[in-house]
Amino acid sequence: MIFRQLFDAESSTYTYLLASRPGGEALIIDPVKEKLRQYLALVEQLDVRLVKAIDTHTHADHVTALGDLRDRLGCVTVMGEFTKADCVSLHVRDEEIIDVDGVRLRALYTPGHTDESFSYALDPRAPKAVFTGDVLLIRGTGRTDFQNGDPRKSWDSIVNRLFRLPDETLVYPAHDYKGWTVSSIGEEKRFNPRIAGKTQAEYVQIMNALDLPDPKLMDIAVPANLACGETMPASG
Amino acid sequence: MIFRQLFDAESSTYTYLLASRPGGEALIIDPVKEKLRQYLALVEQLDVRLVKAIDTHTHADHVTALGDLRDRLGCVTVMGEFTKADCVSLHVRDEEIIDVDGVRLRALYTPGHTDESFSYALDPRAPKAVFTGDVLLIRGTGRTDFQNGDPRKSWDSIVNRLFRLPDETLVYPAHDYKGWTVSSIGEEKRFNPRIAGKTQAEYVQIMNALDLPDPKLMDIAVPANLACGETMPASG
Repeated sequence: MIFRQLFDAESSTYTYLLASRPGGEALIIDPVKEKLRQYLALVEQLDVRLVKAIDTHTHADHVTALGDLRDRLGCVTVMGEFTKADCVSLHVRDEEIIDVDGVRLRALYTPGHTDESFSYALDPRAPKAVFTGDVLLIRGTGRTDFQNGDPRKSWDSIVNRLFRLPDETLVYPAHDYKGWTVSSIGEEKRFNPRIAGKTQAEYVQIMNALDLPDPKLMDIAVPANLACGETMPASG
Repeated sequence: MIFRQLFDAESSTYTYLLASRPGGEALIIDPVKEKLRQYLALVEQLDVRLVKAIDTHTHADHVTALGDLRDRLGCVTVMGEFTKADCVSLHVRDEEIIDVDGVRLRALYTPGHTDESFSYALDPRAPKAVFTGDVLLIRGTGRTDFQNGDPRKSWDSIVNRLFRLPDETLVYPAHDYKGWTVSSIGEEKRFNPRIAGKTQAEYVQIMNALDLPDPKLMDIAVPANLACGETMPASG
């Protein structure tokens, strides 16, 4: 299988390109608009045909490349069923299977960071990896204080949904700020400082006390991402 | 196998932790001094015992954690036979095999970025991956204008040494500045813009024309790294 993890240093975003073989079809998860040229070059060099571009949720810290990839490569844009991004052409439901040339992902509705966040487990029968968006990060979790975030739902998505995947399932988040590239479900169960040894009530308290500033790009990124990455021309 | 790629955003350095199994022995390649706490935590959490810490070469852009890891965990420090870092306790020769609990690396003398740079091929009989230090980067190559760097030797190390590994061998460099995390020998043969379709003479011309500023930390990092990361106390 072809598997590429790509990093946008500006927003600390991880993007994932998956394909079963050279010459075959590919999908991409959480692409960043500014990295479009890199994706186009890589798709060509790896000799794959990008047929699906997935956003795990409506990002607030970077603008998505979904629309650009659709316009340039004709791929299908994908988000979860509860997104308000009407531009997206495929809305997946919980437990739905996405199959791209043998690369199979199971959609998991995992709200908490936003109310429309999905995770995607690779290889539904024997999960090898899970793309967790911003719900579960490595030794951290995504903030729950905007876009209808909810720390109770975040806990529930992580503990009662993602943590039921096998311990050896690799965890690939949409962001990392500390130099991690990958973890596993077993590790996060035991060592995620917000969750391991904590109760749901303690988690809610931790999340409600974070007091983070809004993402720099939020006022641009959220409306742009609801339009699949189409940014408004500057007025004036 | 346990395989972890770690990133130091400050110096854009990739560090690699490898072990055959939980409970077993581990080795680390190109650790960064500022990330010591992260390594110590990860080694404990993954339940491995770090027995070897390897620097591919004398880095000029960050301070190594080799000495700190030796002091804290008792691991053996490793560099190539031509390093001037006398603090290192194991100097490997070209083609020497390092075996850590079944994780086997073949040392490859690959000068060019410096005159003492080594690469390490994982699994000598059927190479799966190669750790290329700064000699071969993803879609780039390490500068050749200091520390007895030599563009002719860099070309020779890349084209006549690394490119003889199987095309599917994954390439894991010590640095990346553009958001790549991994490549393959086949990809770099075909798409490395400094090498693909070029002659050695053209490569030498490209490298000699780069005109890069010295790394910010060079005057601190090189002497510190010759002492396995021991930095001098500020005078005054």
